[in-house]
Amino acid sequence: MTPAPTLAFPRSQRQLLGSVIDSSTSLLAEQTHDIVRFAMGAPNEDLMPIAALDDAFASQRSGRFDYGDSAGEPRLREQILRLVGETEVATTDDRLLVTTGGMQGLDLAFKLCVDPGDLVIVEAPTYTNGNATALSYGAEVIGAPTDAHGLIVDGLPEIVARAGRTPKAIYTIPNFQNPMGVTLTRERRVRLLELAERWGAMIIEDDPYGLLRFGGEHVASFAEIAPGHPLVFQVRTFSKTIAPGLRVGWIDVDPELRQLAISAKQAMDTCTGVPAQNAVAMFLENGHLAPHIERLKPIYRERKIAMRRELERAFGDRAVATDPDGGFFLWVTFAGALESIDTEALFTDALAEGVAYIPGPAFTTDGSMRNSLRLCFATSSPERIAEGVDRLARAAALAVPGAGLPTVGGSS
Amino acid sequence: MTPAPTLAFPRSQRQLLGSVIDSSTSLLAEQTHDIVRFAMGAPNEDLMPIAALDDAFASQRSGRFDYGDSAGEPRLREQILRLVGETEVATTDDRLLVTTGGMQGLDLAFKLCVDPGDLVIVEAPTYTNGNATALSYGAEVIGAPTDAHGLIVDGLPEIVARAGRTPKAIYTIPNFQNPMGVTLTRERRVRLLELAERWGAMIIEDDPYGLLRFGGEHVASFAEIAPGHPLVFQVRTFSKTIAPGLRVGWIDVDPELRQLAISAKQAMDTCTGVPAQNAVAMFLENGHLAPHIERLKPIYRERKIAMRRELERAFGDRAVATDPDGGFFLWVTFAGALESIDTEALFTDALAEGVAYIPGPAFTTDGSMRNSLRLCFATSSPERIAEGVDRLARAAALAVPGAGLPTVGGSS
Repeated sequence: MTPAPTLAFPRSQRQLLGSVIDSSTSLLAEQTHDIVRFAMGAPNEDLMPIAALDDAFASQRSGRFDYGDSAGEPRLREQILRLVGETEVATTDDRLLVTTGGMQGLDLAFKLCVDPGDLVIVEAPTYTNGNATALSYGAEVIGAPTDAHGLIVDGLPEIVARAGRTPKAIYTIPNFQNPMGVTLTRERRVRLLELAERWGAMIIEDDPYGLLRFGGEHVASFAEIAPGHPLVFQVRTFSKTIAPGLRVGWIDVDPELRQLAISAKQAMDTCTGVPAQNAVAMFLENGHLAPHIERLKPIYRERKIAMRRELERAFGDRAVATDPDGGFFLWVTFAGALESIDTEALFTDALAEGVAYIPGPAFTTDGSMRNSLRLCFATSSPERIAEGVDRLARAAALAVPGAGLPTVGGSS
Repeated sequence: MTPAPTLAFPRSQRQLLGSVIDSSTSLLAEQTHDIVRFAMGAPNEDLMPIAALDDAFASQRSGRFDYGDSAGEPRLREQILRLVGETEVATTDDRLLVTTGGMQGLDLAFKLCVDPGDLVIVEAPTYTNGNATALSYGAEVIGAPTDAHGLIVDGLPEIVARAGRTPKAIYTIPNFQNPMGVTLTRERRVRLLELAERWGAMIIEDDPYGLLRFGGEHVASFAEIAPGHPLVFQVRTFSKTIAPGLRVGWIDVDPELRQLAISAKQAMDTCTGVPAQNAVAMFLENGHLAPHIERLKPIYRERKIAMRRELERAFGDRAVATDPDGGFFLWVTFAGALESIDTEALFTDALAEGVAYIPGPAFTTDGSMRNSLRLCFATSSPERIAEGVDRLARAAALAVPGAGLPTVGGSS
C-alpha cells in the first residue's frame, strides 16, 4: 500500500482542531436522549425567516442556475452596498466580493495575506476555524491575551518583540467575539490601526455578529474610524442574521486586493451559489432584514440574561461568565472548587446528562484554557437554558464531588 | 499609504491567469451587439432542467436553512452513492465529501496533496483554474504534452528525470478533456497508475464530463481499473449534467484523506449550501438525471458534428480541430497560411465580428499555444454555430489577408 500524501498544513494541528469540534458535533449526532444544545453557534430554526426565504427561492426567474459573476450577483452587491451604507459607513462596489459564507472570506484573507512561515496574531481564545485557516497556509500563529474589553492591544508590541519579527496579519473578531462575547473598545481599535500601519500588517476583521447588538453603546467600526483603510480586510456574513445554510457572505477590502480576491475565488469555487445569492438579494430588496433583526434582539437579550442568571444560581462564584452586549456566546471559566475541571473530559459526562457545549481548548492554539467552555445562549429558550445549566451543574458535581454543587435529579 | 500585502501565490502568475479569462468574460459583458458564445463551458439555459429544479427548491422542508454536515447532506450522499454505483463502480460513504462545485474539489486536492515548492504535472493544455489552484499552494507546475489520446503518459518519466525529482501530484482530466476534448486511453490510465505508485504521486482525476459521452466506446475509469486506489483523488460535479449555478459537486477519495478533507473544508466554507444540496438530492431521488442526460447527448453530438463540419467548410486545412466523443469542447489549432495567428490578438477582432472563444494561452503555464483556441460547441444551435464559425473566419481573414479565406458579408 502506498503512503498517504503529505499535507500542505501541519497535519497533527489540523487533526487536533478538527477533532475537538468533530467530537462535539459527531458525538452529538449519535445521541438519542434529549440534549440542550449550547454548542453550535447558530440561531434555532424558529428564529429563521423561513417563509420569506421560501418566497425568495420560489419567485426566482431566468439566469438563476447558470454560472454567476465571480464577484457576486450585481443585484446582491447593490443590496449589500445599501445595507452597509445604512448600518456602518458607505462603501463602494469595487471593494465588495460576495463569498460562500464568512468562512470563505477568512480563507481568502489568509490566502492573500499570508506566506508560509509568516507570523499571524490571533485573539486567545479565538474562532477555531479562523485559526485553522491561517495554519492551512503555513502561518505561525501566536495567541494574544483578551479580556472583557477584547484583544489587549497594548500587549501586542511585547509579543512582537518576543517573536523577533512583525506580524503579516492580526485576526480579530471585534464585536461580541467568538468565543468570549466581548467587544473591542474604540480606543483599542484606534491603537490597533496604528500598530497595523507601523508593522504593515493586515487587520483581518471578522464581524458576523455586529448587527446583533441588544445592549450597551455602539462602538465605532474600523471603517468608521478609518474609512477605506487599505490594511483592513473586513469579513461579513448573513449566516447569523438570516440563515447559515445559505452560505452567503461578503468581504469589503481595498480595490486592488479585491481584484486579486476575485482571481483567487475563481480557483476556489468559481462563484457563490446563484439561487442562494438571489434569495438573499430578494430578502433584502423586500426590506425583510431590519424587522427580522429587531425581532431577534430582545429574544437574544432575554436568553443571555437567563443564562447568566442560571449560571449564577447553579455555580455561584465557582464559574465566571462574560456579559456580552450582543451576538450568540458566553464564555465560562470554572473557578474556586471547580478550577481543576477539564472541560474536554467533562464533555462526555455533560452529554450523558443531556447538555452540549464547546470545550475551551477548541479555541486555543496550544490546547490551553482547559477549565473554560463556550455556551451559545441564542439557540434555546429561557426554560431550556435553565434545564441545560442544571444538567451542566450535575456533570460538574460528578467531576468534582466535593464542590458542593446540587446533584438533585441525578442523571436525566 | 501602506503597501499592499504580499501574496501566498505568485502574484504575476495569478494575474496573468486571471487576466486572460477576465479579458474574455468582462469584454464579453461589455458588448451590445449579437455574439455567438463559444467561450464559456456551460450548457445553455434551455438545456437546463429548470422546471424540475424549481420544484426541488419549492418543495423543501425543515432543516434546509441551517448549517449542514461538512461532509454533505446525508440524503445527497446517498443519491451520489447510487449514481456512482450505477454509472461506474460502487463506492462507499466513507470516501464521499460533497463540495461547492468541482472547483472546490480541486482546491481541496491541491491543499491536501501539495506543499510549497512541490512538483505538479498537468496536461498541456489544461483547465486554467486547476492549474491556478496548484500555483496558489506554491506548486511548481510542469505541463506535459497531450495528443488525440490524452496525456502522453510514456513521456512523463523523461519529464521527471529532467526535473530531477518526482511529482507530488499529476492533474488529469481523462474524459473529454478541457480544453482539448480528448479522452485518455485505458492503456495510458493503467500506465499512469503504475507511475503514480512508483513516485508516490497523487492522481488528481478531474471528471466533470464523464457522463456526457455521446459517441465512441466507454473507457474504464481509474476506479474501474483499480477500485479504491489510495492515490486517486477523484473530483466530480453536477455543474455540467444539471446546472453550474447550484455549485454542487463531490470528491471520492481514500477514507483517511476524506477525514482530512472534511477538516480542511470546515476552514474553507464550513459546508456546501444546504438548499442547493437538497435540490440536487430531490432531482436525483425523482429519477430526473438519467433521462435529462439522455436528452442532452444527441443534442451535443449534433452540435459537435456541426461545428467540425463548419470549421472544415470555412477553414479547410488551415485549421485542425479535435474530434471529441463527449463533453463540451473542441480544440482548434491554426495551420498552413494561418499558422502565425495569435489567438489572444485575434480575440478583439473576433468579438467585433460577433464571436467569442477562449485563446489557447489561457490553458498553458507558459503562455504558449498562441495559435490554438477552445470552442464550446454545447451552448449554440447548429445554425448559430455556422454563423459563429463564419464570423471567426472573417476575423481570421482580417488578421491574415493573404490566407484566401471568405470575407463575404464583411463585419456584421
